[in-house]
Amino acid sequence: MKPTITAFERSPDRGRGLARDMRVRWALEEVGQPYDVRLVSFQAMKEPAHRALHPFGQIPTYEEGGLALFESGAIVLHIAGRHAGLLPADADARARAIAWMFSALNTVESPIVEREAALLLERDKPWAAQRQPILDERVGVRLRELSSRLGEADWLDGAFSAGDLLMVTVLRRLGGSHLLDAHSNLCAYVARGEARPAYQRAFAAQLAVFTGAA
Amino acid sequence: MKPTITAFERSPDRGRGLARDMRVRWALEEVGQPYDVRLVSFQAMKEPAHRALHPFGQIPTYEEGGLALFESGAIVLHIAGRHAGLLPADADARARAIAWMFSALNTVESPIVEREAALLLERDKPWAAQRQPILDERVGVRLRELSSRLGEADWLDGAFSAGDLLMVTVLRRLGGSHLLDAHSNLCAYVARGEARPAYQRAFAAQLAVFTGAA
Repeated sequence: MKPTITAFERSPDRGRGLARDMRVRWALEEVGQPYDVRLVSFQAMKEPAHRALHPFGQIPTYEEGGLALFESGAIVLHIAGRHAGLLPADADARARAIAWMFSALNTVESPIVEREAALLLERDKPWAAQRQPILDERVGVRLRELSSRLGEADWLDGAFSAGDLLMVTVLRRLGGSHLLDAHSNLCAYVARGEARPAYQRAFAAQLAVFTGAA
Repeated sequence: MKPTITAFERSPDRGRGLARDMRVRWALEEVGQPYDVRLVSFQAMKEPAHRALHPFGQIPTYEEGGLALFESGAIVLHIAGRHAGLLPADADARARAIAWMFSALNTVESPIVEREAALLLERDKPWAAQRQPILDERVGVRLRELSSRLGEADWLDGAFSAGDLLMVTVLRRLGGSHLLDAHSNLCAYVARGEARPAYQRAFAAQLAVFTGAA
């Protein structure tokens, strides 16, 4: 059965692939699972019909037969559990890859989202300039730790996994900043993710929504 | 094989059960799995030996035979996958419970941690008072949405699950504020979690570390 995901009718990132449907598209492309997309407006996201699928009124959601899921991390994990290609077969290696999934979304993404929100919503406040170094450093400490762990490896723990997929999408959110520049291994890691054919198909699909080519 | 987890040698919450080892202790108690605890100091957490287990120098970690895990969400999911009692047997219901796990840690906990960090680290800044309503509202919107979804149900999706376990521990972080007061169903939900015998055993165990009774 072909799943249906939701995505922004008009993505605030103008097709740069930073909205969270990108993660789900990429995972589906990695495992070769075709999918349908239902676009939702900012207004419709907050209405009861969408909130029945997503209690917090966001995208993406995932519908497959009688199953409805929300939270991009949970959706990627569900896809990884149904298909080969996103998690190792060995039980211990699988648990470690899942730890990197949680780590990407909780430990690394949280300060990145906090920084983004400040840039977007507190830009005109009198404290904006003074808080910027504090926010940069909250991200910076995580980047140094991640860079140190990754070292010269291609991926975080052996072969490419759903943990890398999420981590690459999280680090891509820093594209407009220079925070990644200090870590050439993290830049190469992101580029390695973006070079995957499945990534490129997913990116093109979300961009086509924005350009109207879909 | 008995797993070993790590916890703060001296918890900054003075035994209120807000440190993230509480989640893992609670999960282990729910499934009846005995465990050992290794206490780590703030200094030791940042040293190479601990960072080999946890790249971000935090607690908890989880060691079991040759497996080493970090991230409380991943550890709870691992425990839930090995034992009955924390996830439904039905595949769809299981995926939904896992969605609530991600939701608790990403969507609900993130603004709560951001608010806590501001109270702790930016308390003396000139903007502290003016930013407080912004931070409260970022948490408030999530609480209203969560309260609306929970309604009069006991748990988020059918029987108690690892999703509820994480969500209760996340909401407990608001205990020092009045943000939960507007939502009597969320207060009752937290109380329902705290009343579980497994919760109480886990709470007593982490408190004993602080009081020195361990």
